[in-house]
Formats: sequence, structure tokens, C-alpha cells
Amino acid sequence: MSQPPPDPSDAEALDAADPLTRWRDEFVIGDPDLVYLDGNSLGMTPKRTIAAVREIVETQWPGDLITSWWKHDWLNLPLTVGDELAPIIGAQPGEVVVNESTTVCLFQLVNVALNLVDDSGADRVIAVEDTEFPTDRYVVDGIARQRPDIRVQAGLDDLDGVDVVVRSLVDYRTAELHDITAETARARSAGAVTVWDLSHTAGVVPVDLTAGGAELAAGCTYKFLNGGPGAPAFSYVRTELHDRLRQPIHGWFAQQNQFDMDEPFSARPGIAALMNGTPSVIGLTAARAGISVTADAGIEAIAAKARRLATYAIDLAESLGLRTSTPRPPASSGGHVSIIHRDAAALQGQLADRKIVVDKRDPDVLRLGLSPLTTRFRDVHLALSTLREICD
Amino acid sequence: MSQPPPDPSDAEALDAADPLTRWRDEFVIGDPDLVYLDGNSLGMTPKRTIAAVREIVETQWPGDLITSWWKHDWLNLPLTVGDELAPIIGAQPGEVVVNESTTVCLFQLVNVALNLVDDSGADRVIAVEDTEFPTDRYVVDGIARQRPDIRVQAGLDDLDGVDVVVRSLVDYRTAELHDITAETARARSAGAVTVWDLSHTAGVVPVDLTAGGAELAAGCTYKFLNGGPGAPAFSYVRTELHDRLRQPIHGWFAQQNQFDMDEPFSARPGIAALMNGTPSVIGLTAARAGISVTADAGIEAIAAKARRLATYAIDLAESLGLRTSTPRPPASSGGHVSIIHRDAAALQGQLADRKIVVDKRDPDVLRLGLSPLTTRFRDVHLALSTLREICD
Repeated sequence: MSQPPPDPSDAEALDAADPLTRWRDEFVIGDPDLVYLDGNSLGMTPKRTIAAVREIVETQWPGDLITSWWKHDWLNLPLTVGDELAPIIGAQPGEVVVNESTTVCLFQLVNVALNLVDDSGADRVIAVEDTEFPTDRYVVDGIARQRPDIRVQAGLDDLDGVDVVVRSLVDYRTAELHDITAETARARSAGAVTVWDLSHTAGVVPVDLTAGGAELAAGCTYKFLNGGPGAPAFSYVRTELHDRLRQPIHGWFAQQNQFDMDEPFSARPGIAALMNGTPSVIGLTAARAGISVTADAGIEAIAAKARRLATYAIDLAESLGLRTSTPRPPASSGGHVSIIHRDAAALQGQLADRKIVVDKRDPDVLRLGLSPLTTRFRDVHLALSTLREICD
Repeated sequence: MSQPPPDPSDAEALDAADPLTRWRDEFVIGDPDLVYLDGNSLGMTPKRTIAAVREIVETQWPGDLITSWWKHDWLNLPLTVGDELAPIIGAQPGEVVVNESTTVCLFQLVNVALNLVDDSGADRVIAVEDTEFPTDRYVVDGIARQRPDIRVQAGLDDLDGVDVVVRSLVDYRTAELHDITAETARARSAGAVTVWDLSHTAGVVPVDLTAGGAELAAGCTYKFLNGGPGAPAFSYVRTELHDRLRQPIHGWFAQQNQFDMDEPFSARPGIAALMNGTPSVIGLTAARAGISVTADAGIEAIAAKARRLATYAIDLAESLGLRTSTPRPPASSGGHVSIIHRDAAALQGQLADRKIVVDKRDPDVLRLGLSPLTTRFRDVHLALSTLREICD
């Protein structure tokens, strides 16, 4: 079906009225003609990140060397950055640590969850959707294969007998947003502890872990938080659970009186018990800079723009006869909009040839990442009208 | 006791004859008056690291964004850097991955070792010295506390009934170097698998994991390899064991056909099975730059200078009436020389006031790190003669 090109004036008007428009200037724009709709996979580079990384690599490290661990408080960087991230996800001070990959964070938290459940001697059950993001499924699988007393249940409809639920708050394919309060409570009433994966949530949805009653959560910082490629992830443990926080990776940064080296392991109180080895200072510094951009712009304003972008994208896609699997906000997080097309892979390549970068997930999903600080309505317009043109 | 100041001409002659002297110019010298003898804790900043990190943060990430994972092969960076590190530790291509903190690497490898041991249904025993570096002891402790079938034995004298040995190749206090071939064989003849910790070895001792018969090893890159603060660590698994490589942290970078997201977990063959989450590209890039300096200067030349530095330091310390616990090379690794003094902490501070940075380990050890690429004989002379002066 051939259609007249849609009118871009709506998009231009929305950009003109966008209170966040100036934040795009906080990012490095490598190629001004590039339409980058993949900030949900790798966020763009904040200008302040360049200055922050230079400060570490070119000033602190060579100038102050080993004394930097104290002078610049590198020792506490995972906790400092955690506290700076906390308000963005509705956590309290002392509840978040930024340190390892999402995989390692999830591994630690699923073990924390297993250790929280009363040990009746019976087998344990971890429930995870079989459409869940791979990392979450793999982590659960790895823990279950190691221990004969653990069974994995595929699916969350029936939580009877389930001990631990592992779940993304925002679905990585459809962008559907779950109700954290209702779903945490549903699990808890079945006797289960929930480990929420906030990877597609943090920095784009104003999640409130405190009000939502969340117990455990992890998530990454290189998507909507623009923390850099492979930036360290975060772990959250609700304060009330800190005195029962046990997990199997004991690192020397989790040790009380770290430099009293003759003592046996005794975990630091609070979230620091999740620290492991020497933290990656350079990666953490980039993550910190990215997080600060979101903190400064304000998560409520970012989320509001995300919803406007998603609504605009879904309206436009439908008017162009494109199929989407993303529900309209507020059911969707607004973090991305998925277009369903059997030629998704080929279309991604053809869009890239026209300098429009989108993501795909096999077999038939094109994901348009709508990272609110860097995406303009005109970018969405150009991407979808070009997609329509290619399909024709 | 008061002594005449020792003659610095020996040190000057040794510096003049040092074939590695030009390598110090490859590092950023922040303060030319600073004597930095703590490269065994945090190596100095190679100039090329600054360029390499800028290339990632200021060019590749902002310019190529998500496509960098393929265009610049970020996807395989942990394996690429592993292969570049391999010759420095006598490993073969495909046997080393650089990825997580030393703590996480050790956690994975101790689990690999446990899974290698025949499961007779009996309890497992992990042996570790109670004077071992804390991280190693803590990691073993964490694994044992999680599993009732694991017991920890303190001490390595009797390996009868032991399944896994965890051990530093170079003692972090005395710098004593163990015989990797003899000790791996002794453990194997008792039916035990050894996990070697090379943190105080890599980049200063020409260890040969292949010839030594090593099975598993881990180590850090931020000491003698100058990889940067909290740089990712490495894991080594001997090729012959790759088909039996099982460990509990299953991340999506260890998955065969990573982007076929509907499949259950199936580990990639080889050392890639130890990969976890999205690797820290910026930290890995700094580690890579540091490793390349050692590769270019040559580990044999570096080790030869380390032995000369240690011999000179021990001779000078003895001539000054200072007590050292470090054996002479070749028994010591040459990576550092320990001076024993009951006022170690106060002496460290007084040396620092005179711009001489050394390390201490409670209660009575001053460690003089002799990182061969950045340490001059005249630095050792100044540090020890100043120490003598302060003691007087």
C-alpha cells in the first residue's frame, strides 16, 4: 500500500514545545544527520562523561596514584554512585550499590533471595517467564544446575509453592510495564521474594521501589542512563532486609575493616555486603556521569517525554499502517516502541543505509528506542516514514 | 644506630646500565620528585592508555554508538585482551579471558575446580593457607558457607583428601615465589586441582602456565600490568579442561549464538564459557593498553630487572641494618621487598611526607614495590637511605 508522506509539522511542533530539548546539547552528536533510535541498547555519550573520564585517567590516577583510593574516595565509589542513582529508582540512601555486570548482580541477588526464604528443608522453586530477557533466564539456570535442591518453573501465572520470582519490570520486546506494587505483593502473598530486573526501566520510568514494596532489584546503567559501553550495573536491597543479606561471592571490598587482613570474612553491614573485588574506577566514573545527567534533567520530566514520544510513535505507526506490539502509555514504559514485521532484519539494514539506527530482536521485532534526552519527535517521524517508504 | 649515608653511585651506575630505562618515558610522571614504590598495588599510568581511552570515549562510542560492538569488535574484547595477555603468563591462545574483578574470577574458577573433581558423593575439601591473601580466603569461605558438602582446610602441608587448592604463586607479604610445576604436581598427585592466584605475579615474573602444568589461574591487571584502578582481572583455563568447564554464573556473553534469544543456555566452547554480562569496554581498553606495554618491553627483560632491583634493595637494606623478610632472587619474585619494622605504619607516613610512597601491611610490614618499568635503582636508594635516616 502506498501512502502520501505524513506531515512532519506535528513532530516539529512537539519538538518546539519540548521542555527537555536543550538536554540533547549535553550529548556528543557525532553525525548530525544520524537518527539514533537505539539509546535503549547503548545510550549516547554525555559531554560531561568525557571530562569526568579525563579527570580520572589523566589527572587523579597519574597524579595521586595509590593515594587516590582515599584522597578521591575511590574506595566508596560503588556506594557513592549507588546513592546518586537511588532517587531515580525510588530507593533510599544506602540501598543501592553500582559495581558489577548485570549478570553478576542478578546472580548475587537471586542467591540473596534464596537465603531469605525460610529453609524448611524442602526444595526451592525459582519462577521465571520463558519469554524473559535471556540473562535473567540464564542466571536462574546456572544457579539451578549447581544445586540439586532448586527447580525452575517457567511462567508466573501460578506462584503456589514458588520461593523466588525473577522478572523484568519492563518487557524488553513489547515495552509493557508491569505493576511493581501489585506484582511484588502477589508474589509475597504466595511466600515468594521477587528480584526485579530494571534494565529497561531505570532512567526512563519513574519507578518507586520504596512505595512499591520492592525487596530486591538489579539493572544496567548503559541504556537510558547513558553510562557507557558495559558500564557497571546496580543492585538494590531494601533496608529492612539488610540484616539477612547473605550471598556467596565474598570479596575483600565487602569485608569489615578491609585492611585488617588477618581476620576471617565478616561482611560489612548494609548494601556494602554486595561489594566484591576492587571496583572498576574508570567504568564507574563514566556511569556516574551518565546517571548525573538523568538526575539533573529529572526522571519525572524524562518519563513524561517518554510517554509523549511513545504515544506519538504508536499513533504515527498506525496511521502509516505499520503494526506495533507496544501498548499505549501508561501500559507501556515509553522506553521503546516495537514494530512487528516479518522482514525485520532486512528492514533494519535498509534503515541503517539511510542513517537511521534501530534495534531488532529476532524473528520479527524492530525496536525503536526512544531515549527521551536524545530523541526528537522529528527523529521518530523520519524513522517511521522512511520505514513506510522502504516497505512500499 | 647511626650510619654514614650510603653511596648512591652504585644505584646511578645500575640505572645507566639498565636496558629498560627508556620505558619509564612511556608513563605519565606527574611529579618528578615523587618516588613511587607502590606499583605492586596500583601501577602507574602508561601514556598510551590516555590515547586508548580517549579513542573509546571520545571517538568510537559517540561516533559509532551501538555499531561499535561489531565495527570495533567490542563483543570479543575480553577474549582479544586475553590472547594478548596469554604470552606474558605462558598461556596458549584461547586460554585466557579478561573480564571481571579478581574476586569474581576466583569465584568462577573455584567452582570450575569443584566441578572438575569426580563426584563420589563424598564431601569436598578446599585447602587454603590461613596467611593467604584475604580475597582468596574470603572467596573460598563464601563458597563453603553456601554448600554444606564443602569443608575448608587451613594449610597446604598435607593434601591428603583435598579436592581443590587455592594459592598465590607469589606471597603478597614476603614476595616468595613458589614452584608452580612442583606444587601443581604435588596437588595433582593427591587428587587435587589447583587454582593459582597470579595477582602478584603477572607482569613481573615470567610464569609459564603451559610448561608448569597449571590447570586454573586468575590474577589482576592493575598492579605490575599497569591496567588502571580496578582494571578487570583475568581467568585462565588449560585447553585440555575446556570440555569440562562448568561454573554457575551464566551470562549472555557466554551463550552460543548470543543474539538467538529464545534458546535455553548453552555455553560457548572454550574459555568464553567464563564470560558473563556485557563487558566493561572502557576498563578493558585501559587494561589492554597496560598489558601492551609489558608485552612490548618483554616479560623476560622485565623479570631480569625485577631480580636486579630486589637484589640491590636487599643488599642495601642489610648494609643499612634494616630487616627484610624477602628472600633473595630467585626465591623471591622480585616484585617487591618487605622491610619488617614494628613502627611500619608511622614510617610509611613519614616517608610519604618526604614524597616517598611505599605500601604497608599490618602489623609490621613495609612493602617497597619494585615495578621494573617505572622503578629506578636511585629510587630504591633514596627510599631505603631515607628510611634509615627516619629510623635514626
